[in-house]
Amino acid sequence: MSIKIGIVGYGNLGRGVESAVFKSNDMELVALFTRRDPKTIKTNTQIPVYHIDEIKKFKDAVDVLILCGGSANDLPTQTPDLAKNFNVIDSFDTHARIPEHFENVDTQSKNGKKVSIISVGWDPGLFSLNRLYGQAILPNGNDYTFWGKGVSQGHSDAIRRIEGVLDARQYTIPVEDALNSVRNGENPSLTTRQKHIRECFVVAKEDADKEKIETEIKTMPNYFADYDTIVHFISMDELMRDHKGIPHGGMVFRTGTTGLNDENKHIIEYRLKLDSNPEFTSSVLVAYARAAYRLNKDGDYGCKTVFDIAPKYLHPASDEELRKNLL
Amino acid sequence: MSIKIGIVGYGNLGRGVESAVFKSNDMELVALFTRRDPKTIKTNTQIPVYHIDEIKKFKDAVDVLILCGGSANDLPTQTPDLAKNFNVIDSFDTHARIPEHFENVDTQSKNGKKVSIISVGWDPGLFSLNRLYGQAILPNGNDYTFWGKGVSQGHSDAIRRIEGVLDARQYTIPVEDALNSVRNGENPSLTTRQKHIRECFVVAKEDADKEKIETEIKTMPNYFADYDTIVHFISMDELMRDHKGIPHGGMVFRTGTTGLNDENKHIIEYRLKLDSNPEFTSSVLVAYARAAYRLNKDGDYGCKTVFDIAPKYLHPASDEELRKNLL
Repeated sequence: MSIKIGIVGYGNLGRGVESAVFKSNDMELVALFTRRDPKTIKTNTQIPVYHIDEIKKFKDAVDVLILCGGSANDLPTQTPDLAKNFNVIDSFDTHARIPEHFENVDTQSKNGKKVSIISVGWDPGLFSLNRLYGQAILPNGNDYTFWGKGVSQGHSDAIRRIEGVLDARQYTIPVEDALNSVRNGENPSLTTRQKHIRECFVVAKEDADKEKIETEIKTMPNYFADYDTIVHFISMDELMRDHKGIPHGGMVFRTGTTGLNDENKHIIEYRLKLDSNPEFTSSVLVAYARAAYRLNKDGDYGCKTVFDIAPKYLHPASDEELRKNLL
Repeated sequence: MSIKIGIVGYGNLGRGVESAVFKSNDMELVALFTRRDPKTIKTNTQIPVYHIDEIKKFKDAVDVLILCGGSANDLPTQTPDLAKNFNVIDSFDTHARIPEHFENVDTQSKNGKKVSIISVGWDPGLFSLNRLYGQAILPNGNDYTFWGKGVSQGHSDAIRRIEGVLDARQYTIPVEDALNSVRNGENPSLTTRQKHIRECFVVAKEDADKEKIETEIKTMPNYFADYDTIVHFISMDELMRDHKGIPHGGMVFRTGTTGLNDENKHIIEYRLKLDSNPEFTSSVLVAYARAAYRLNKDGDYGCKTVFDIAPKYLHPASDEELRKNLL
């Protein structure tokens, strides 16, 4: 009996989930739901497409819904709305609003005797797990999180909004000296500027004032002003040829000491190097969908995060096989 | 209310647990149990010392017992014996016998309505967790585990048993080329020899035949014959000066692809660099002791491994704080 998955939303994340489920032996895709006209969407694996307004009819046909909308406008209402009738997974990543989102979703899930898992992905998600494990094991220590090298969608969008810019791609890059200092156990205190560089590839209109664009980027508050920012102007052809991918990654470190006199140093490093940020995120969502399905079978209802899920629920093998082969 | 911890056994691991609990805000040490004459043991933090035969009197005084004996001779009988009357943690690491050990301990824990967590540490333990998370997220991929650079106690002991050897220290070292190939996403097939080097520092008796010792080491089946092995003869003073520590570490990789045509590569790397293997292992044991205490309060009895424990149980903070600060 395979787990029946529904997808809500068909952007990069939705397509990633489609592919990850398509390749899973214990899951099948039963429906894709969209706010667009279903007839206009052609899926890669011929999943049936329905309008989101019809979704409640699928209450019994779908075991877990994976919500692939955005954290700014979609998930704050969509996840609680759907959590009463479905087991749901989302990748809500607006850190400051997680406690509020959790409460909203939890109420609905408990009312409907369903399981929801929010803020799933790699950060929040796998990186959060490593922060937790690291602190629990080395209570006397420091946390470091670095992102990149990878494309920041938000920063790329910010550049695109500047007058005279046709398109842009922004890479977040960890500073090598900072990484080395952490890896050497020096426990550095690092400013924003010392941790990451921002490198921008910008396609400008022919008559645009490039100097003005560069200054606008480098002085943009919150996005770039606190960083060392490198700006390259390239052609649209170059952008399409060299910057089509959506790679990302990063590292979570926990460095700390043990011993009665703190005489021994330890370094834990968790590192991701991802060719496709949305496809990897989707893979995490799909593993947690398996967990949601199983927790629901166990009657363990309500909203959860990655912190609440025992690792075994993510893996298709039985407990016995896991102990025998992976422990 | 702090969690009351008892320690069984006072070797390197027992001393590591003592120090880790001593530094934890939510735990206290109530007793150390030993098979030796308690009067002969002076603990670093003035814990009361009792003979192991008295341990059942402490049934209600101890919340969790951390067993610090060896996997070969102590834990196979000690863990099941104590699991009926105590919540217990052990670091059983004889991989082939884990299923059998699990069953023995599980029966006793369930009979006594207690929680036991076996095979806790970094391998088995944190490395196992990373193998599980990696496979669950990237089902189409490869696992790689490297150990070192670090001291292998078993290999050092094997050298010490050779005639003419006074003392020895053996380091397991991952081969840099193999690591680079994995990190580059080349998915290499690696032989034993291609993954690790063995470097030995040997103190020989004055009249010993060093050439014979070196040959005996390098040709020793299971331990050295399948590896490139480097042997250095040094003085006892040099051994004491340069090789006193017990460092260890290693890496777990999961490399895999996503996308309908496996077009995107991803690399997950988990890396430990440890000044003291026993103190770090102890720190993991102590975090899981916190989990055992909480699971017992929840009435979730029986034997567990790291795969069965939701991460939140390891960290002293509340669920709300974890979501707010670490997610």
